[in-house]
Amino acid sequence: MKFISDIDVMPLKALLDPQGKAVTMTLHNNGYAEIENVRIGKHITLEIEAESKDAAEKKVREICIRLLHNPVMEGYQFTVSELQTHTG
Amino acid sequence: MKFISDIDVMPLKALLDPQGKAVTMTLHNNGYAEIENVRIGKHITLEIEAESKDAAEKKVREICIRLLHNPVMEGYQFTVSELQTHTG
Repeated sequence: MKFISDIDVMPLKALLDPQGKAVTMTLHNNGYAEIENVRIGKHITLEIEAESKDAAEKKVREICIRLLHNPVMEGYQFTVSELQTHTG
Repeated sequence: MKFISDIDVMPLKALLDPQGKAVTMTLHNNGYAEIENVRIGKHITLEIEAESKDAAEKKVREICIRLLHNPVMEGYQFTVSELQTHTG
């Protein structure tokens, strides 16, 4: 079965996020004073072939830990759902 | 009222995504042949002060269009939800 996973890799809350700070300031300079605390990270989508949703989740967690996030600076969250294929 | 918005800015499906292609290849080289079609974009979170959820959504859509995404290369999606503050 084919699954699709949505992964968010975000800078840890305890750390400064210079890119987010820059965008917050740009928004203020453009008249959006009501926006605060912008944080910017990565959004990753991927397709994965697995026997079950549990197996897919296990594999996605493994690649998040091994390859997609840097634990010193980032945290990750993900969802896995079955890929809907349209036929007929 | 304070709201929190989660925004995904992703490369358009019709376009090549070199960063995603590189990560797909890295995953294959690390033994994850079952992963395909990795795409990488930005995940942005922000806090917004607004009178209602509708007003917050309207404002977030406006800043997505004006400042956060490049329509030539990217699409965006977002959700808005009330910020839960813990008191007591």
